[in-house]
Amino acid sequence: MRLAGLALGLTPLLPPAPVALAPSGQEAAVEAARAWRETHGVEILEEFAGLLAVPSVAADRAGLARCAALLAEAFTRRGATMELVEREGAAPLVIGRIDAPGATRTLGLYVHYDGQPVSPEDWTDPPFEPTLRDAPVEQGGARLSLSALAPESPGARRAWPAEWRLYARGAGDDKAPLIALLAALDALAAADLAPTSSFVFAFEGEEEAGSTHLRELFEAAKPALACDLWLVCDGPVHQSRRPQLVFGVRGVTSLELTTYGAARPLHSGHYGNWAPNPALELARLLASMKDARGRVLVEGYYDTVQPLGAAERAALAALPEFEQALRAELGLAQSEGEGASLAERIALPSLNIRGLRSADVGAAARNIIPASATAALDLRLVRGNDPARMQERVVAHVRAQGWKVIETEPDLATRRAHPRLLRVQRGQGYRAVRTPLDHPLVPALSSAALAAAGEAPLLVPSLGGSLPLYLFEDVLGTPMVIVPIANHDDNQHAADENLRLANLAYGIDLFAALLRL
Amino acid sequence: MRLAGLALGLTPLLPPAPVALAPSGQEAAVEAARAWRETHGVEILEEFAGLLAVPSVAADRAGLARCAALLAEAFTRRGATMELVEREGAAPLVIGRIDAPGATRTLGLYVHYDGQPVSPEDWTDPPFEPTLRDAPVEQGGARLSLSALAPESPGARRAWPAEWRLYARGAGDDKAPLIALLAALDALAAADLAPTSSFVFAFEGEEEAGSTHLRELFEAAKPALACDLWLVCDGPVHQSRRPQLVFGVRGVTSLELTTYGAARPLHSGHYGNWAPNPALELARLLASMKDARGRVLVEGYYDTVQPLGAAERAALAALPEFEQALRAELGLAQSEGEGASLAERIALPSLNIRGLRSADVGAAARNIIPASATAALDLRLVRGNDPARMQERVVAHVRAQGWKVIETEPDLATRRAHPRLLRVQRGQGYRAVRTPLDHPLVPALSSAALAAAGEAPLLVPSLGGSLPLYLFEDVLGTPMVIVPIANHDDNQHAADENLRLANLAYGIDLFAALLRL
Repeated sequence: MRLAGLALGLTPLLPPAPVALAPSGQEAAVEAARAWRETHGVEILEEFAGLLAVPSVAADRAGLARCAALLAEAFTRRGATMELVEREGAAPLVIGRIDAPGATRTLGLYVHYDGQPVSPEDWTDPPFEPTLRDAPVEQGGARLSLSALAPESPGARRAWPAEWRLYARGAGDDKAPLIALLAALDALAAADLAPTSSFVFAFEGEEEAGSTHLRELFEAAKPALACDLWLVCDGPVHQSRRPQLVFGVRGVTSLELTTYGAARPLHSGHYGNWAPNPALELARLLASMKDARGRVLVEGYYDTVQPLGAAERAALAALPEFEQALRAELGLAQSEGEGASLAERIALPSLNIRGLRSADVGAAARNIIPASATAALDLRLVRGNDPARMQERVVAHVRAQGWKVIETEPDLATRRAHPRLLRVQRGQGYRAVRTPLDHPLVPALSSAALAAAGEAPLLVPSLGGSLPLYLFEDVLGTPMVIVPIANHDDNQHAADENLRLANLAYGIDLFAALLRL
Repeated sequence: MRLAGLALGLTPLLPPAPVALAPSGQEAAVEAARAWRETHGVEILEEFAGLLAVPSVAADRAGLARCAALLAEAFTRRGATMELVEREGAAPLVIGRIDAPGATRTLGLYVHYDGQPVSPEDWTDPPFEPTLRDAPVEQGGARLSLSALAPESPGARRAWPAEWRLYARGAGDDKAPLIALLAALDALAAADLAPTSSFVFAFEGEEEAGSTHLRELFEAAKPALACDLWLVCDGPVHQSRRPQLVFGVRGVTSLELTTYGAARPLHSGHYGNWAPNPALELARLLASMKDARGRVLVEGYYDTVQPLGAAERAALAALPEFEQALRAELGLAQSEGEGASLAERIALPSLNIRGLRSADVGAAARNIIPASATAALDLRLVRGNDPARMQERVVAHVRAQGWKVIETEPDLATRRAHPRLLRVQRGQGYRAVRTPLDHPLVPALSSAALAAAGEAPLLVPSLGGSLPLYLFEDVLGTPMVIVPIANHDDNQHAADENLRLANLAYGIDLFAALLRL
């Protein structure tokens, strides 16, 4: 992503999502943000480092509580009204609000302040001792003092080197939006620019632990969280470093299917081609579920899919082609779906074999007829699919192939009674969510991203992955859009997590523009 | 198995294998054997115990050598000409001969004197301290002194209690035929009955270690091992305790097939239903190999099967029905092959999935598209099937389904070039062997078993399992018949291995009859 300057004329407009050119209010906000961070870079990094030094990971309840308190205090200092929503066994949900007098809209900002667990021995720098480097550590980036970002003289401006990176757990996922928002508030205050929308905040402390209490916390805080649209500030921008706005995620659920042969593994010589082989039976069943072109053959599997609208189809068509390079990187001669793009395929529910096991292969293999065979399946869901009903469609398909479906390990009598016996174990799951691309706020969001990045954002109807974002709709009754700022190569969830300074700059500039939407 | 007395009129004749009633020569031999063992039971058990006390297992080279020497000496004492065939790294092959003046035939007797490895902590009695018990140890059988088998007064006869058992490694598998043969030689000598056939012996010391040197040892000893038919004295009689003669074993080989997806496991959300799933592709391939009735669909898979002759088909028809009970025991509602019997199915080559693996199932399952999937197959072969050619038929089937077959792990360039890439790894193997049931010596063997057991033996065309018995044909140029004597419940290969006295008695009586064939 390019950092500075408007790129008028250079930025392709993405039809038909009407991306207006950044209006002057947002230009002014972005210029204020840039002026602030180019004169106060060291202070921003120091506050960020303070936030990153708090070990807010699931294993450290005290660290999570300290981080929540620190955030409440930092936002209170900027004039927000903050509160901690606490529930037994849950990390606090930090909520807050900034009211703009006369504002006609309220935007919600969701960020999570917890990070993935760490294995410190895998890190170059200690994960909770934030470290600035002048390039990626794996490219030999050298350590710098945070004060390396200071201007040459007091009051002078110092452009931010795009490729410097700050290393720490949570730098990219997901404390970056928190510090960017704090800096943007400072920048606008310094330029005497008040927010033009009201804002509510929800900062979660359990995202990396599965958002176990989010429904309960949202329900408790619901009146305080009323708004027009939630901006979910998480995840990375596009691999091309272009900014993006993402309008949905897939839902997910899982199934495990186990077929049975004899009650014990049998000698494959004494019983081979007399005793039925559960691995072969399972293979035949799995093969019946999807054709060679990648179409799921389970009856009704696509019936409840809510099709993409015209805006979504146009956005897909406008996405840059990168699949040839991706196939080459992954060593794939072709992809499923007869040439359909990845984004098109993601708009459909998937039926994936995530694991397969029957007895052993390799050196551990023995000449037996296995006693059972198991396939673990995951189902990625799109808007319109109900997780339990999608599971049932697969189970109905199994039954239609002549299987007796059971829920527990069969006893001898059950085995004797049914030639084809299959145990199904249903996993948990949740539905997909997808905000329509013609939502009235999309043009404004796009122009904010354009003002901050100098190029229009990619509009992505849905990620392929799954997050429990349906809670925004289900509990709060509000649509959401994902607004990522981190670099895609931030080592999210791994060792040496980092944030590129260019992406921190984009975040500050973007939040300044959003505050003046 | 009933022990004593002829069962004329009670024994069903098995058409069309012409089982003659035991001629008087064999009756006299069996009566001599019975008289001998009922007067010399203690001496027989003591000599057996001496043989079993030698730890002739693969880990004990000295024990193997001692056992070989002991056998050579014991048979030399009975008038046989014995020799040890030794090769670097091999346990000795003990060979020998007994020439019957004027005999028109020579029979070979194969036995192995090595036993399976032991885990002494699992045994009730120490595996190399032979222990007599008056019932199976798991039924509370009490320890007896070997002298418990002594007659009440010197010269009186003492019938053998059928259910007493001698516990030691090798008691059933496979030292029983050695002591039975020694006792039979003593019995005939005491009754002044000379053998009516010449005999050659081959006692192997590496059967439980895979008969690694048997080809080499047979080649070295070939001139001394010339005979008309080998009797392979190993394995148990039928589960019903009826005696049996077995005319063949299946061959065996194996294949491992690995399919490939992307070069690394992929997030099933980000890439699910775009990146091909190698587990599904493998399932589809496996499903194409066999139909729902159990027929292998690989082209030409049955082409080289040497069909059963009339005698074999009649023998199969005469086998007792036990499959209903077997299915009930195994928890099977039905078996493959549309009602064909186990013995009929064993007469065909099998294609068995012995293992299946792709990523993980159960608690370890993750939401990924696996990078590869592997199926381990074993192929059980029947007479006429060449192991390498049968492997190639399967590989040709894979190719015919559109797969590029490779022999090593693919590099990125290979992956990019071929949408369906399958690695094949070929296992070792050997062919089946099956002696025709109309071999001219079958009636005589059957009548010997009848004379010894009081009921006609089951005639089994082939075991389902595999042993490298093709070496008798390939190296020595001689057919073979398996002549088992041990009880099926002898804990072969496990702890508390034992031989039932009824089975030892059958062995002694049978060898006496065979010596007077």
